[in-house]
Amino acid sequence: MNFDLLNEEQLKALKAELDGQYKDFKGKNMHLDMSRGKPSKDQLDISMEMMDVLDGDSEVSGEDSVDYRNYGFVDGIPEAKELFAELMEVKAENVIVGGNSSLNMMYDTVQRAMQFGVYGSKCPWNKLEKVKFLCPAPGYDRHFAICELFGIEMIPIEMTETGPDMDEIEKLVSTDEAVRGIWCVPLYSNPQGISYSDETVKRFAALKPKAEDFRIFWDNAYCVHHIYEDQAKILNIIDECAAAGNPDMVYEFVSTSKITFSGAGVAAMAASKNNIEHIIKLMSVQTIGFDKLNQLRHVRFFKSVDGIREHMNRHAELVRPKFDAVLNQLETKLKPFGLVKYTKPNGGYFISVDVMNGCAKRTVEICKELGVIFTSAGATYPYGKDKNDSNIRIAPTLPPVSELNQAMDVFCMAVKLAAVEKLLEK
Amino acid sequence: MNFDLLNEEQLKALKAELDGQYKDFKGKNMHLDMSRGKPSKDQLDISMEMMDVLDGDSEVSGEDSVDYRNYGFVDGIPEAKELFAELMEVKAENVIVGGNSSLNMMYDTVQRAMQFGVYGSKCPWNKLEKVKFLCPAPGYDRHFAICELFGIEMIPIEMTETGPDMDEIEKLVSTDEAVRGIWCVPLYSNPQGISYSDETVKRFAALKPKAEDFRIFWDNAYCVHHIYEDQAKILNIIDECAAAGNPDMVYEFVSTSKITFSGAGVAAMAASKNNIEHIIKLMSVQTIGFDKLNQLRHVRFFKSVDGIREHMNRHAELVRPKFDAVLNQLETKLKPFGLVKYTKPNGGYFISVDVMNGCAKRTVEICKELGVIFTSAGATYPYGKDKNDSNIRIAPTLPPVSELNQAMDVFCMAVKLAAVEKLLEK
Repeated sequence: MNFDLLNEEQLKALKAELDGQYKDFKGKNMHLDMSRGKPSKDQLDISMEMMDVLDGDSEVSGEDSVDYRNYGFVDGIPEAKELFAELMEVKAENVIVGGNSSLNMMYDTVQRAMQFGVYGSKCPWNKLEKVKFLCPAPGYDRHFAICELFGIEMIPIEMTETGPDMDEIEKLVSTDEAVRGIWCVPLYSNPQGISYSDETVKRFAALKPKAEDFRIFWDNAYCVHHIYEDQAKILNIIDECAAAGNPDMVYEFVSTSKITFSGAGVAAMAASKNNIEHIIKLMSVQTIGFDKLNQLRHVRFFKSVDGIREHMNRHAELVRPKFDAVLNQLETKLKPFGLVKYTKPNGGYFISVDVMNGCAKRTVEICKELGVIFTSAGATYPYGKDKNDSNIRIAPTLPPVSELNQAMDVFCMAVKLAAVEKLLEK
Repeated sequence: MNFDLLNEEQLKALKAELDGQYKDFKGKNMHLDMSRGKPSKDQLDISMEMMDVLDGDSEVSGEDSVDYRNYGFVDGIPEAKELFAELMEVKAENVIVGGNSSLNMMYDTVQRAMQFGVYGSKCPWNKLEKVKFLCPAPGYDRHFAICELFGIEMIPIEMTETGPDMDEIEKLVSTDEAVRGIWCVPLYSNPQGISYSDETVKRFAALKPKAEDFRIFWDNAYCVHHIYEDQAKILNIIDECAAAGNPDMVYEFVSTSKITFSGAGVAAMAASKNNIEHIIKLMSVQTIGFDKLNQLRHVRFFKSVDGIREHMNRHAELVRPKFDAVLNQLETKLKPFGLVKYTKPNGGYFISVDVMNGCAKRTVEICKELGVIFTSAGATYPYGKDKNDSNIRIAPTLPPVSELNQAMDVFCMAVKLAAVEKLLEK
């Protein structure tokens, strides 16, 4: 019974029924927030033992007996560089370990490029007439916010099941010198949970940019964030770029914000030696070093990337029932009516749903009226503009399953109501 | 027996004696570093109990039961804002608590001004034909490094015993629109340990800048870093600026880098509400929040500013004998020969010594040849240029007193040798 096939009378009857449900929900006076990809209390609890690895009697000197409580190590303590190098499958010399936020690291990297240029730039990007970034969309709103703040023109790129539209990317990157960068979340993309195929990664590495200082911003935010047994694996972009003769073309970013604590994790980046040296030189004016004790805490807690992987299995067990709950409601309540398109993600933090064209904003609005907050419709697109007004990002991790089911009850009703309203307009 | 009064023969005899001492020192094969203002191991040890205040069973929610392990609070957790507000004698709404480095906070503040302008700017500073900063000198080399990186022209300002030359500052600020900022370390200045008099602070607050977006960068790095009983107290610049009708003219910075851990402290800034709102808006694109658990750790460890003051008394006890040792050698070995000028600082991290004009570089060089590293001569001046080549910064905190005495033995010999060499040239 696809909604498209209903006649006006049927639609009106359905609307009456949904209006009734709306009233019932309204009476429940709900306050639920599904808007951001935040870990739940349960998830945060499994890292609390990390608070015990450094105590008042701890040895806080490093491999080379340097006191990590003191100044220094602008690019991170050697042990942390080793751990993140193992995680990103690069050498420690290709790694900078920073503060608690990879977003901050990405922002600083863009700001440095604007102010000073990147390694190999002929001039600072601020001095260019125009800077454009390609933005696979739907994507991460905070990437887009950085571009918007710096006046970088964003060009949306369609997503496919194997990653962004590479034909379009190759064309734009090789013909338009103003294109200086691209944002990528290559594994379990935000919000669709799409992982880039080997061909996609290889085509990225083999790009022939018109701008010689073009950079790929490879935000590997979900590099160990598997949820289901069917784990995606992507090629190593640093290696692939080097092999393709483009060693300096990529910056990779990771963080433990969704491994340990979102408010007190550790971020890191990897890039070619030229890039790293260029960044360290500038960064040395910005700071004498990031929080080394928190870096040490993370290293001693995890010991190795195997330790991280085991830890992530525990996250997966907590997150999986929540993804199941959302997917189950989408499957049973909306799919049969032809009302939604979505991909089941095998990892990451989001489920991305396409509702009927022209209905996303109204759907989110109805939910909000009923006390259930979803990410603003359009937020996953550059400038907040989803030309189809169809994409909604669901963040299932924070609320307990019981609340999640309530929120999804409201969501499914809202998708239907918005669709019926739309069809009745015609 | 002032060196100036010696004749050539006496100088030659003295040189022969000093050359002998040089050889003896060379034989000792020393490796001592007096170059940076780093706390000693003893000082770091007194904060180790802070590692125990958060453990695996800790309650890590805040006043409003928000989980501090999760995302949020871009301007810091309320408790930390309160603590730093008390420290800076402002309201919590005037405070941003950041990451582990006030240098990073200052750099970011300058970078934001360059890219976007400050509150009230007509255009970003990057778009101005020329940006100049006034730089009281000798001063903090890392302030100057920020200016140099951004191509901000530095104008050195002479220091007096009551702070920088205010006549010169008033003249330049009120007549030259390119002057957009000034760096100040108002209490126990780096490196001279000079504290600004009430009149100096009031004249700062009453400045009438030609550039309407002129800013004072008030780096209150040593706000609780008293060493001797005679504690300096400066006026509150935020209040004074407000009272003088210039509420938006100042940014104040502090950090716990030299209270708890240089590698894992907490930094904060204070400013008018207009400034704070302007910064938070931009900063919200840069990060979702700084390390809140480390902020919480600091709050629970200190409880109040009284807690910080008691803690600083323990630092003073550890640091005082080191300052005594340096001052004693200067007093007994160099002062009687008219070879040095210096002020005894009552707090801070440095002792600043003016040797005979034209002898600072050579003195530091001689020390280096003997394995004793001092801050490069000139480093305390904009562009590393001390026009008199006379200022040397001594950082007494890091080495134990025994090493410090050895280093000062070398230093005093080097000051004499450099002076004798200079006098023999004439």
